[in-house]
Amino acid sequence: MADRKKTVTPVQKRFADVDILGHVNNVNLQHYFDIGKSDWFAKVLDAEEFWQGEGIITAATQTSYLEQTRFGDYVVVETSVEKIGTKSFTLLQRIVAPGSGQVKAESHSVMVAYDFNAQTSIEIPSHWRKAMEDFMGP
Amino acid sequence: MADRKKTVTPVQKRFADVDILGHVNNVNLQHYFDIGKSDWFAKVLDAEEFWQGEGIITAATQTSYLEQTRFGDYVVVETSVEKIGTKSFTLLQRIVAPGSGQVKAESHSVMVAYDFNAQTSIEIPSHWRKAMEDFMGP
Amino acid sequence: MADRKKTVTPVQKRFADVDILGHVNNVNLQHYFDIGKSDWFAKVLDAEEFWQGEGIITAATQTSYLEQTRFGDYVVVETSVEKIGTKSFTLLQRIVAPGSGQVKAESHSVMVAYDFNAQTSIEIPSHWRKAMEDFMGP
Amino acid sequence: MADRKKTVTPVQKRFADVDILGHVNNVNLQHYFDIGKSDWFAKVLDAEEFWQGEGIITAATQTSYLEQTRFGDYVVVETSVEKIGTKSFTLLQRIVAPGSGQVKAESHSVMVAYDFNAQTSIEIPSHWRKAMEDFMGP
Repeated sequence: MADRKKTVTPVQKRFADVDILGHVNNVNLQHYFDIGKSDWFAKVLDAEEFWQGEGIITAATQTSYLEQTRFGDYVVVETSVEKIGTKSFTLLQRIVAPGSGQVKAESHSVMVAYDFNAQTSIEIPSHWRKAMEDFMGP
Repeated sequence: MADRKKTVTPVQKRFADVDILGHVNNVNLQHYFDIGKSDWFAKVLDAEEFWQGEGIITAATQTSYLEQTRFGDYVVVETSVEKIGTKSFTLLQRIVAPGSGQVKAESHSVMVAYDFNAQTSIEIPSHWRKAMEDFMGP
Repeated sequence: MADRKKTVTPVQKRFADVDILGHVNNVNLQHYFDIGKSDWFAKVLDAEEFWQGEGIITAATQTSYLEQTRFGDYVVVETSVEKIGTKSFTLLQRIVAPGSGQVKAESHSVMVAYDFNAQTSIEIPSHWRKAMEDFMGP
Repeated sequence: MADRKKTVTPVQKRFADVDILGHVNNVNLQHYFDIGKSDWFAKVLDAEEFWQGEGIITAATQTSYLEQTRFGDYVVVETSVEKIGTKSFTLLQRIVAPGSGQVKAESHSVMVAYDFNAQTSIEIPSHWRKAMEDFMGP
């Protein structure tokens, strides 16, 4: 992901993120990916309230848990666009310790453009498509 | 609370409830009290959807964390009415290990009757007041 | 999954499971899959404390979010074995509304046998392998 | 709390913090108070790993939920020392919208000095007492 454009979002940990094994619980890591998504929506799509009107839902996720994250580990979420389809696009995300570059977890998410008024999937609005393509670059 | 009428709600634990100390995290214990409240709303007030129309909000909580709860400990939430006012009432709740009778945590919650359409507190609806008084008994 | 042997675990919902969209949040659905896993570990592997000694970790998950789950919807988690390897096995899980049979979400999890003392993956202990094979049937 | 010395910790929200009512769920606000506590432990007591050796546990909390916090609201947690006893001290915390100064929630927490090896409460270590007194000022 070194040469791909991405947002980088520092994560603020919470004490209860860490489970009995002494590392951030797998499920709670999914909240970290959500932090990255919200930040990406705001920065790339300029979408602060992505859960109403023309918005976005997560249809599928595929996650590999690679290394443990301790309470004291500083980590960021990197978010890039992997693929743009007609009604959906795929985000690639990594939870990374920036110091060492160690990748803690990696996830692919299928995001669907959704009309929350009509409660149905829609084609990706053209201004979002353009914003994503601009973000991805040539 | 032996002689006070109460609902008794078994708690289903989740792996991530337990923190690095090996016991259910204090914040997650608040979810357990919520489980007891939802059950009490349904059983005593017959209110399944207490978050719309004439509903109920939690205005204040006061909790003592007394004993540790391990993942394998079977616990229930006991919920009784402590006081009924004009617009609010107070619930007394205990997280208890039924085998030993050990009280793990105890909490008092000030609950306010709330009109979610008007976004304002209201007097406790009379059918709820009656249901609570019937539940409390003489 | 009709003809495959599975555990069926009822889910106790918590009020905070439901997000601003009025349905159980995707991340919180992962806790539901965890509830199913813990139950399966206990019933099939007789492993109550799967996070110490010879235990199990989740290495990867792949989840499809198919239908919304409302606070009032009764759902169960169905858990079956999909594949048994040398050091890992794959669980197939579904969150289902038993009344209608509607599948709300489906997930595949790669589970790795892990020695928590040595902090390394291990071959699946033979008594677990046998228990899984017995559970899967012919 | 205007004239009392305090730490001020910005909160990073997560999408699932917000419940069906469209505001941060009361229980999740307790995670925000935890964020403030961890920051205060680190800055004032220089205690990063407060859950082992000589550490700190939360024995009781008393919280008033005053105003709603929306997903888009920027909030901070203010943490100050209210009282120092022999084995315990009390923190006063507020979740505040810095722009307007609006207090969203206020909480008092009884914190107990705890020896995690001996599993027993202890007198507040003298270097922590001094650090707290220095922090409180005259």
